[in-house]
Amino acid sequence: MNTGFTSNMRIKLPVLAIFLELAIIVLFGVFVKYTPVDESRTADLHLYPYFQDVHVMIFIGFGFLMTFLKKYGFSSVGFNMLIAALGLQWGTLMQGFWHMRPNEIFIGIKSIINADFSTATVLISFGAVLGKTSPVQMLIMAIFEITIFACNEHLVVKVFRAADTGASMTIHVFGAYFGLAVSRLLYRPGLKNGHENEGSAYHSDMFAMIGTLFLWLFWPTFNSAIAAPEDQHRAIMNTYFSLAACTLTAFAFSSLVEKRGKLDMVHIQNATLAGGVAVGSCADLEIQPFGAMLIGCIAGIISVLGFKYLTPLIATFLRIQDTCGVHNLHGLPGILGGIASIIAAAVQVNRISPGMQAAALGCSIGIALVGGAFTGLILSLPFLGQPPDQLCYDDSVYWEIPVEEEPENNSHQEHHNKLSLDA
Amino acid sequence: MNTGFTSNMRIKLPVLAIFLELAIIVLFGVFVKYTPVDESRTADLHLYPYFQDVHVMIFIGFGFLMTFLKKYGFSSVGFNMLIAALGLQWGTLMQGFWHMRPNEIFIGIKSIINADFSTATVLISFGAVLGKTSPVQMLIMAIFEITIFACNEHLVVKVFRAADTGASMTIHVFGAYFGLAVSRLLYRPGLKNGHENEGSAYHSDMFAMIGTLFLWLFWPTFNSAIAAPEDQHRAIMNTYFSLAACTLTAFAFSSLVEKRGKLDMVHIQNATLAGGVAVGSCADLEIQPFGAMLIGCIAGIISVLGFKYLTPLIATFLRIQDTCGVHNLHGLPGILGGIASIIAAAVQVNRISPGMQAAALGCSIGIALVGGAFTGLILSLPFLGQPPDQLCYDDSVYWEIPVEEEPENNSHQEHHNKLSLDA
Amino acid sequence: MNTGFTSNMRIKLPVLAIFLELAIIVLFGVFVKYTPVDESRTADLHLYPYFQDVHVMIFIGFGFLMTFLKKYGFSSVGFNMLIAALGLQWGTLMQGFWHMRPNEIFIGIKSIINADFSTATVLISFGAVLGKTSPVQMLIMAIFEITIFACNEHLVVKVFRAADTGASMTIHVFGAYFGLAVSRLLYRPGLKNGHENEGSAYHSDMFAMIGTLFLWLFWPTFNSAIAAPEDQHRAIMNTYFSLAACTLTAFAFSSLVEKRGKLDMVHIQNATLAGGVAVGSCADLEIQPFGAMLIGCIAGIISVLGFKYLTPLIATFLRIQDTCGVHNLHGLPGILGGIASIIAAAVQVNRISPGMQAAALGCSIGIALVGGAFTGLILSLPFLGQPPDQLCYDDSVYWEIPVEEEPENNSHQEHHNKLSLDA
Repeated sequence: MNTGFTSNMRIKLPVLAIFLELAIIVLFGVFVKYTPVDESRTADLHLYPYFQDVHVMIFIGFGFLMTFLKKYGFSSVGFNMLIAALGLQWGTLMQGFWHMRPNEIFIGIKSIINADFSTATVLISFGAVLGKTSPVQMLIMAIFEITIFACNEHLVVKVFRAADTGASMTIHVFGAYFGLAVSRLLYRPGLKNGHENEGSAYHSDMFAMIGTLFLWLFWPTFNSAIAAPEDQHRAIMNTYFSLAACTLTAFAFSSLVEKRGKLDMVHIQNATLAGGVAVGSCADLEIQPFGAMLIGCIAGIISVLGFKYLTPLIATFLRIQDTCGVHNLHGLPGILGGIASIIAAAVQVNRISPGMQAAALGCSIGIALVGGAFTGLILSLPFLGQPPDQLCYDDSVYWEIPVEEEPENNSHQEHHNKLSLDA
Repeated sequence: MNTGFTSNMRIKLPVLAIFLELAIIVLFGVFVKYTPVDESRTADLHLYPYFQDVHVMIFIGFGFLMTFLKKYGFSSVGFNMLIAALGLQWGTLMQGFWHMRPNEIFIGIKSIINADFSTATVLISFGAVLGKTSPVQMLIMAIFEITIFACNEHLVVKVFRAADTGASMTIHVFGAYFGLAVSRLLYRPGLKNGHENEGSAYHSDMFAMIGTLFLWLFWPTFNSAIAAPEDQHRAIMNTYFSLAACTLTAFAFSSLVEKRGKLDMVHIQNATLAGGVAVGSCADLEIQPFGAMLIGCIAGIISVLGFKYLTPLIATFLRIQDTCGVHNLHGLPGILGGIASIIAAAVQVNRISPGMQAAALGCSIGIALVGGAFTGLILSLPFLGQPPDQLCYDDSVYWEIPVEEEPENNSHQEHHNKLSLDA
Repeated sequence: MNTGFTSNMRIKLPVLAIFLELAIIVLFGVFVKYTPVDESRTADLHLYPYFQDVHVMIFIGFGFLMTFLKKYGFSSVGFNMLIAALGLQWGTLMQGFWHMRPNEIFIGIKSIINADFSTATVLISFGAVLGKTSPVQMLIMAIFEITIFACNEHLVVKVFRAADTGASMTIHVFGAYFGLAVSRLLYRPGLKNGHENEGSAYHSDMFAMIGTLFLWLFWPTFNSAIAAPEDQHRAIMNTYFSLAACTLTAFAFSSLVEKRGKLDMVHIQNATLAGGVAVGSCADLEIQPFGAMLIGCIAGIISVLGFKYLTPLIATFLRIQDTCGVHNLHGLPGILGGIASIIAAAVQVNRISPGMQAAALGCSIGIALVGGAFTGLILSLPFLGQPPDQLCYDDSVYWEIPVEEEPENNSHQEHHNKLSLDA
């Protein structure tokens, strides 16, 4: 199996990481300042518990959600951390440039929530190419994607003035289609019949549930953290009930689509979260609790159906290999969220316009696809350490793996117990 | 071992789950409204960090605490999620009906904390029958138990006006005895000599500690979340110190009751939490820190002794098989909490009455036993997918289990390492 | 491997734990009171979300970080819990004695944050001797170390009036050098060539990442929790960006120091946190975001280099066996933090004095070394249940270990799946 492949990470990864970090520090030195002490800063500090929830979602939630692969846990949780640590610094700068007062970016709790948000986009895209890329590729992707994300977000929020508090469109749709476009450009014909490591093990599925649950639990925070203070309460309520309803339909359809009626962990780990994605754009609107629950129900259903029927088709016909099924967790439910916001705008007509919501959805998909294709082209450069097909989904390419003397290990406890009983 | 048993979950689970979800959405459409924007809503939003702690306890805490069984991790954490997602919606309605202003249930942070609380009751009962029931049975139990719970809680809090801020009686005693009564009705003579799967493995015990610790850490929130604002501070202090003291005695007695002095993970996972249960009813009373610690000490002791000596007796003589030992974690410490509140009422006589505390304890036990027996009778209907004895405590009845090619898997890392060294 | 060693924990552990708990309860009864209801208590309650983050760091963060050893997970997370549960009670008393108003120690959220902090010191030292000590030894160490810690902290904060909000010196430097001194006194020549159990397994490294990530995520809280309200905002920002920068250099240097460029989980689990340690003393100072990032960068580098090159030298030449490498995570980065605060004082000259910062650093090291040596001397008494060399790093000395019938277990899922397919 080992082909003598060497990733040459020893030079490339340190050089790239240190170069990026130094460049960022210089830019921080020039532009970034603490928020001055005034009343707005006091209000800002009140967001700190919201920030901490979002922070847990990014590093524990996304990180462990991707540990489901049986031999790729170190990379999933480790590279997730690396990408996010870079991304939040770069995101602070990119988002800051759009709000800059003459040459000064002021940082506060709200800006670090937004910085964490910008990394979410990259982590979603990371899910599409998980196991098939090197950390060097991912750092480069983070830089490009966050730059493009910040532009799209500015367009959606400031130009179109679209409603997207929970970021169904700017984060979930954008991150999913960006990642799918990258994955298309990095298509591997050698993996079209699957790979022996591209599956889960019992314990890796348990670790993934840690990620799922922390995402599920803190999603009401995600969808309300940057809402206007008078709308936060509603955003929390809508997301809480959407997720609960989504969980019921995800379980129901997971059982329904399998011929023996058995539940599939892939659905439980992912489709239960679709309700949080789909209610995002409408989170702070007066869609009523039952409206939020309807959105959640539909999201759970389309997500399970997507995993079961759409992902294989997309792999075969569109040549897009989507490791984590981000299209089903973020793409489709995100589009549902955008459509729900168009409908909500159409029937409510209070402050948001259906046309602008549609424009926001369209440009999020479009910019993501173009930006992702461009980024994928760059990532397909041959010297970026991409693993060969047979070493995909395998930690040992990039990590020192503990040597497990399993036969001895397996029997050790029994051994001791026996001896202790003898003693 | 496989008897050709088919759980027929493919039809029953989806039909039941979707039916319940649609019924709930209709009821939400008719009754449930957002809390209007006013000052009380602003105060309500301040409870959000408390809500998040409770939310983590319900889904991570209870979910992972039950993953100790070696082959039942998917079901423990998965069905826990399913039950809770249904329960919190149903609990919103049931508790709302008791506080309804003409045809309107207003939802806010406090009501979703209470909704989460109502699911805790079902999750405690779930622990008593863990591994021996189907998800269909558990959804039905959730509907019945939460309905009865809401009535008992109304009786205890509004009619008796008993002190029970941390819910030693209304949640812990009620959930434990309800579950034990259900377990009695579902008694399996075939399991009276144990079952090969009814034990833990090294890693499953580690996963369970995640549950234990998040419960332990956030228990001060559980016991203070719905306290009056001026009493929250005291409820936090009492619970924090009760748990710390309880941990010391739980470790001490775990070592003491085993002839070689070795600690038992079952005790550490469970008895260390008994201090949180037992101090619940008195959490916001002026019992003084040393009083809280005394309650915690006693709780840790009786919980370990219960696991060691009482559970086997109950299984043999009362024919109640209590998988997780909920009687020792919730039942006995909950009764201790009720008794402590009676004593506190007797010596303090400020605002609570010993008689009412005793009535609250008695009616919580009584209603739980009757309600649990009734529910158990319904759950023993033969078409609800209950697994046969030999397939108890086994995920593979309800879940797709990843095929682990262990021999190959065991050696893979060594293999790679060897090859890499060769290269 | 089993030498018939018996730890005799059955008598010693219960007797010691119960004696300590009863003594503490008596002291609480005499001295400890609730904070009276007034405005300061209301402000105190606002720290509750900060407390909960710190609480998670102590029990999940430190507990799981140490589960990396392949056969010592129960002890790591279990004894961590035991030590912390005792330590927070003792810390409440020790820190309270220094702030006592006539015979009264008032407890509140801030005091329980400080109590948790005092346990952090012991848990750091625990890391230095992990796997080589008994729980009886650790309880005794907790009592001594917290007593000495409270004196040193009083000296640094109240006498020298040094800046040390994030406790680089009072907690990290102190805990590391105390633990190293203890480890020196407990030196085991028999382990100088390593031990077969002193390594990680794939899953134990995954569990350890749970600890790493919760420490990383909540470190901004750790460094800001007891800052003055007007400085909390800045302490959060500095720590957030220091950790992010540190993560990049830790990954870079982990790859750089290994000849094939592979990342080492030990570095990722530990060195990524060094930025939080090192920015501690300066956390609330106006060092600017780029300054915080520079500190983080350097911390990540020295931590990786310490693990790679210094730890083996210290083991060989100074005869200090540092199981978790606390010198690299807490010792060196803590000293860096102290030096950074001296430099900050020298260039800022606003309210802190370089001399006092240097005195704080020096006395933290000195008192830790002397106190640790004294404590180590006591812990080397032969009747405290210290395991023999061959049973080090092995849970089975102190815990009932589940008997795993691995061969049967390994094949069970495959077995069931096959049968189900047949059916």
